[in-house]
Amino acid sequence: MTAVAPRALPGPVLVIGCGLIGTSVGLALRAHDVDVLLVDAEPANIAAAVERGAGRPFTDDVVPYLVVAAVPPAAAAAVVASALVRWPTAFVTDVTSVKAGLQRSIDAQPGAERFAGGHPMAGSERSGPTAGSAQLFEGRPWAVTPGVSTLPAALDAVVDMALHVGAVPIILDAASHDRAVALVSHVPQVMSTLTAARLNDAQGNHLALAGAGLRDTTRIAGSDSALWIDILGTNAADVRAVLELVRGDLDRVIDALGEDDTALGDVLESGRRGTALIPGKHGSAPARVDIVHVQVADQPGELSRLMSDTGQSGVNIEDLRLDHDLGRPVGLAEITVALGVGDSLVEALTSRGWTAYR
Amino acid sequence: MTAVAPRALPGPVLVIGCGLIGTSVGLALRAHDVDVLLVDAEPANIAAAVERGAGRPFTDDVVPYLVVAAVPPAAAAAVVASALVRWPTAFVTDVTSVKAGLQRSIDAQPGAERFAGGHPMAGSERSGPTAGSAQLFEGRPWAVTPGVSTLPAALDAVVDMALHVGAVPIILDAASHDRAVALVSHVPQVMSTLTAARLNDAQGNHLALAGAGLRDTTRIAGSDSALWIDILGTNAADVRAVLELVRGDLDRVIDALGEDDTALGDVLESGRRGTALIPGKHGSAPARVDIVHVQVADQPGELSRLMSDTGQSGVNIEDLRLDHDLGRPVGLAEITVALGVGDSLVEALTSRGWTAYR
Repeated sequence: MTAVAPRALPGPVLVIGCGLIGTSVGLALRAHDVDVLLVDAEPANIAAAVERGAGRPFTDDVVPYLVVAAVPPAAAAAVVASALVRWPTAFVTDVTSVKAGLQRSIDAQPGAERFAGGHPMAGSERSGPTAGSAQLFEGRPWAVTPGVSTLPAALDAVVDMALHVGAVPIILDAASHDRAVALVSHVPQVMSTLTAARLNDAQGNHLALAGAGLRDTTRIAGSDSALWIDILGTNAADVRAVLELVRGDLDRVIDALGEDDTALGDVLESGRRGTALIPGKHGSAPARVDIVHVQVADQPGELSRLMSDTGQSGVNIEDLRLDHDLGRPVGLAEITVALGVGDSLVEALTSRGWTAYR
Repeated sequence: MTAVAPRALPGPVLVIGCGLIGTSVGLALRAHDVDVLLVDAEPANIAAAVERGAGRPFTDDVVPYLVVAAVPPAAAAAVVASALVRWPTAFVTDVTSVKAGLQRSIDAQPGAERFAGGHPMAGSERSGPTAGSAQLFEGRPWAVTPGVSTLPAALDAVVDMALHVGAVPIILDAASHDRAVALVSHVPQVMSTLTAARLNDAQGNHLALAGAGLRDTTRIAGSDSALWIDILGTNAADVRAVLELVRGDLDRVIDALGEDDTALGDVLESGRRGTALIPGKHGSAPARVDIVHVQVADQPGELSRLMSDTGQSGVNIEDLRLDHDLGRPVGLAEITVALGVGDSLVEALTSRGWTAYR
């Protein structure tokens, strides 16, 4: 299932940092027989990554083709700069989530033309080499951020690496990247936090009224605070710029509530237009779909039977979510299918004894 | 799978309004052989609901035990008040999403002691009698909001009706209800809108970096604006009170970004604590779980095979989400299982040829 990259990736690739990302890069490249060398400040991490099959320990005689600095943001500038000096023919990239500050720092260094920044949009709630997986990047965006002096060959090397690990390379400059992640990741994180923070004010059985909408909007607010202090601080200017626009809209909503339905409607419509811009399945615009709800008993095998019956009805499942109901041992499956086939799926499932409805 | 209610529900039940909610109430009660009468301003809606099996057309000789005013918010006060007068022995409830204003209006009417408000936390993107379903309320919260003068027998009647349609009754007074839904529904809706509205500022390929976090936080922003203008306007004071607290936190974040990590961390931690308060599966506090990721080819039958292989491994699926990857014909299933069994599921699936990881 791993994508075939359009160009071979010459090795050796040196991965500096055997955490989740570095180990996963190593594992994914080893699956293509790329020679991968591993370095970490902590020898136990190298041993664990080697044991997983992510590559072999680095030795001084090796001249890397590409260096992947898979180190935390605070260490990235120094590691990239020293790699550019130590291996004067190597291309170098990194994996940090905010790019413009690092790019400015590297632009002032010798060898900057061999550097192109990178940011894989993938992660896990786990960390360290044992959490690494060759599949971590499969189908995920990998931002590649060339600087003004970056050589085409350096950009190609990083794009090819992203393709080899199964990712979808998205090329944009560092400043654009940071504005983009402020919009699609950092500000949504803050908004989720602000929504969830208010739940501390809830009294008695108020939260028993919570539904899927609340769970969806607050899921990412459960993330690690230390990580987000770091990310938000590093991209402070871009995040603040977006949040100030949010504050403007928030003030408009507060003023309009119960007073000015037109103004309130303008903000709501702006939100509707915004959601329609998010790329859907296969990178295309979201398709109109039918949604079928099916009750599923909380027992092993029930979901399997549902999927089997759905498959036999000839309907392809576009998306599927399973949510357990409040207070009872039954789940509700939300099956998304192509527009127009929802009714026939309901009919097929009902005839097989399922409780299904649209 | 429908719950057995603890007490029989005497009929007849008169449902006024044959839209999605009214028709679904009728269908669910008919499944328990409760006598259901139907009224609607539009005769075609009555005919459609009767055709669906939601009940029989109302006739003047019937004296209802319970009247369910399943009409839009703007009509609810008048319909409830006239029902209380017309049938001086009947209990009366409604299904509107904001309760205090209606309660104040009814408190001033004769028969207020026979009224207890209701609010089913269920819906669909569809509307009208043809969208009705006997399963719409299964396992969903149904807020029941007695007034100060409500008779115990009236409260019991509405609670029993909620139980008969498969819902989980949550009893609280109207003012508490409105504060609760401001927190768990109306403010999250506004926050989702404010997040999504900013996406209109995105340039070029910026939104190609969107991930699951953005999709989760903005999903409900795609809802119907007219509906939300109505809901937010009716609960304006409670929503405004919460949004002003949100603005306070937003100002703190804007000030703290890149300046004061302690202050930023305080807000982020407050959000983390808030998410932990949301009831999880079966109404309990959220359990710690393992999450397993599995690649699923975009072909009919693949999900069925995955569920079958998972079932044969003896692991019960707590929750399941399927997301399609950007730019390629493969989906990523997120399988939530009990804490500690993730690794063995990965092993079982890998041995059956799946690409699985945690």
